Amino acid sequence: MTTYNFSAGPSSLPTEVMTQITQELTKNQATHMSILEISHRTPQFENILDEAKASLKSLLDLPDNYKVMFLSGGGTTQFEMVPMNLATRLKKIAILDSGNFAHKPIGAAEALNVTVDVPGTTRSIKYRELPHLPAQFDDTQYDYVHLVTNNTIEGTTYHQEDIPDVQHLVADMSSNILAEPYDFKKFDLIFAGAQKNLGIAGITLAIVNQDWLDEQDLSHLAPMQKYQTAIDKDSMYNTPPVFAIYVLNLVLKWIEQSGGIAGLYEKNQRKAHKLYDYLDHSSFFDAMVTGKERSLTNVVFTSGDAKRDAQIAQKASQAGFYNLAGHRSVGGFRASLYNAQPEQAVDDLIAYLKNVEMEYLND
Amino acid sequence: MTTYNFSAGPSSLPTEVMTQITQELTKNQATHMSILEISHRTPQFENILDEAKASLKSLLDLPDNYKVMFLSGGGTTQFEMVPMNLATRLKKIAILDSGNFAHKPIGAAEALNVTVDVPGTTRSIKYRELPHLPAQFDDTQYDYVHLVTNNTIEGTTYHQEDIPDVQHLVADMSSNILAEPYDFKKFDLIFAGAQKNLGIAGITLAIVNQDWLDEQDLSHLAPMQKYQTAIDKDSMYNTPPVFAIYVLNLVLKWIEQSGGIAGLYEKNQRKAHKLYDYLDHSSFFDAMVTGKERSLTNVVFTSGDAKRDAQIAQKASQAGFYNLAGHRSVGGFRASLYNAQPEQAVDDLIAYLKNVEMEYLND
Repeated sequence: MTTYNFSAGPSSLPTEVMTQITQELTKNQATHMSILEISHRTPQFENILDEAKASLKSLLDLPDNYKVMFLSGGGTTQFEMVPMNLATRLKKIAILDSGNFAHKPIGAAEALNVTVDVPGTTRSIKYRELPHLPAQFDDTQYDYVHLVTNNTIEGTTYHQEDIPDVQHLVADMSSNILAEPYDFKKFDLIFAGAQKNLGIAGITLAIVNQDWLDEQDLSHLAPMQKYQTAIDKDSMYNTPPVFAIYVLNLVLKWIEQSGGIAGLYEKNQRKAHKLYDYLDHSSFFDAMVTGKERSLTNVVFTSGDAKRDAQIAQKASQAGFYNLAGHRSVGGFRASLYNAQPEQAVDDLIAYLKNVEMEYLND
Repeated sequence: MTTYNFSAGPSSLPTEVMTQITQELTKNQATHMSILEISHRTPQFENILDEAKASLKSLLDLPDNYKVMFLSGGGTTQFEMVPMNLATRLKKIAILDSGNFAHKPIGAAEALNVTVDVPGTTRSIKYRELPHLPAQFDDTQYDYVHLVTNNTIEGTTYHQEDIPDVQHLVADMSSNILAEPYDFKKFDLIFAGAQKNLGIAGITLAIVNQDWLDEQDLSHLAPMQKYQTAIDKDSMYNTPPVFAIYVLNLVLKWIEQSGGIAGLYEKNQRKAHKLYDYLDHSSFFDAMVTGKERSLTNVVFTSGDAKRDAQIAQKASQAGFYNLAGHRSVGGFRASLYNAQPEQAVDDLIAYLKNVEMEYLND
């Protein structure tokens, strides 16, 4: 049985990467060790780290003043590290409240005595649309504006044309980094958990504009709380998660071989458009997001009946379509179409949904 | 060629665990997913997490008021989390400065405005012996006493009879947890990076006495800074490092099958005593630590000439004895004999060192 994993993350790895991991997990012929056993203080691992950093700088087309860090504790830890490191001047930030993972950083920053303004929110309509900055927004009143490029749970995205022009922009790109194009230089801080588009759970990417970091007063922070420690110590102030960084590097190589962001974007557009097109023409299923805000990586939809949706998702998993149930706060279905999701998965899912539709409509 | 990895960490995994990982890395027959791809919100992962917690409570013989957490950021992050969470009453702690990894937490706590007293230090003699609390030490003046049970770099250990009786004791057990017996109830907080005795780099174990944590004022902390968040959310407030916890659980099962701490302690004593016995009788090599403070997990020794030591370590790696060079702050050699290190590794190392000795003495 062919099976597909539509999980919002941790998600599938590219088949080529899985094959390579399986081959290399046994002892390496030169080092006589498995990648699981090598020290971070070896030329082998230092190469992996250097390659991963260089690939990211190149794929994201970032200049030398952007510094790449590999951190721990997921995006959730970044909800705290970002204000600690980058809201030291005005101690006031603005967050575009576009979904669950845009809302959480509000409480995190406030717990750290940073004032949070919410210049735009769609919370009252359950985040079915994206909020935007008001025309009269004064960015000089804030250390930075925080936004989530792709809302994993709600299936909405600030695509490149919707990214606001402000002095300092922080982006949580956990669910669409390297899946679609942005002018990454518009952001002064980017972070992303690896477990959606970059590899396995256990490593978080953060990239900061060093010039901006240099303006901050970090004297009140302990070493592990500071971005500067990770930059100065090449992400090895503590023992880094060697295997997770190794997998990340393999995924980056696979992205390069897939034509970089441009190549994957073309494929991701095809995948998402096929599915949205089907949903828009279906008389049984409906996409829950309309218009240009639709996410390419997380497609949410429903048959309009919560109980029936749950039954269908359950039955689909028996047919090999795993993890289609939507997040509990939204319900319905969510098909996550990250970079590693093959186009065939979408074709097969549409065929399956057509059958479901027929069954119910004939009932 | 048979090869051995004597690295101080990341270190070797038990052969049985490596085999099991290799077998299970390909797609599981029931879930049709690799362990690298499963979500943390699955019954499969929840079982792994529950098993790991139960094994630890049982192996360490800890009562129900001790809570097990799986955290990120290594022991180094604990140098900061411990004072943040557990030095909230007097904001004053005492650290037994027994080595490099006992010294680092001093600066970390001070950066967080916690006063640090050092009631005992052997820094001036390069940590060749262990410091102890003075007889008149008044533990009521401190939130807690912090000690490192095993000093990985310097090769010294507070064995169970040397653990002081104080009101609240915090132990960094990164390099000898589950390798020798302690009355673990004497500690109110234990932490350990996994990459020496517990698995791969990327996960840190912390165990806290909930009764003591309940006495703290944690209102100033953000969610990821609080132990209570990890306890309340079962270490899944953020997406946990699924694979690292999976490997940790396999290692714990292997420890149970190896007779638990008692079984491994017997083996670890045999390994270490063989090597120390050889060094004590050698006219060429000398152990750098004497007496009852000797570590079972990290044996440091020297031929008395730094340059020659480096040459010998280099040559040994060509013969399959990897990572024998001592830490740069100590020099000489360090043979790390963690739980997964087979007794044969020690036998073969001694035979090799005897040959080296003969070669040099015949020169």
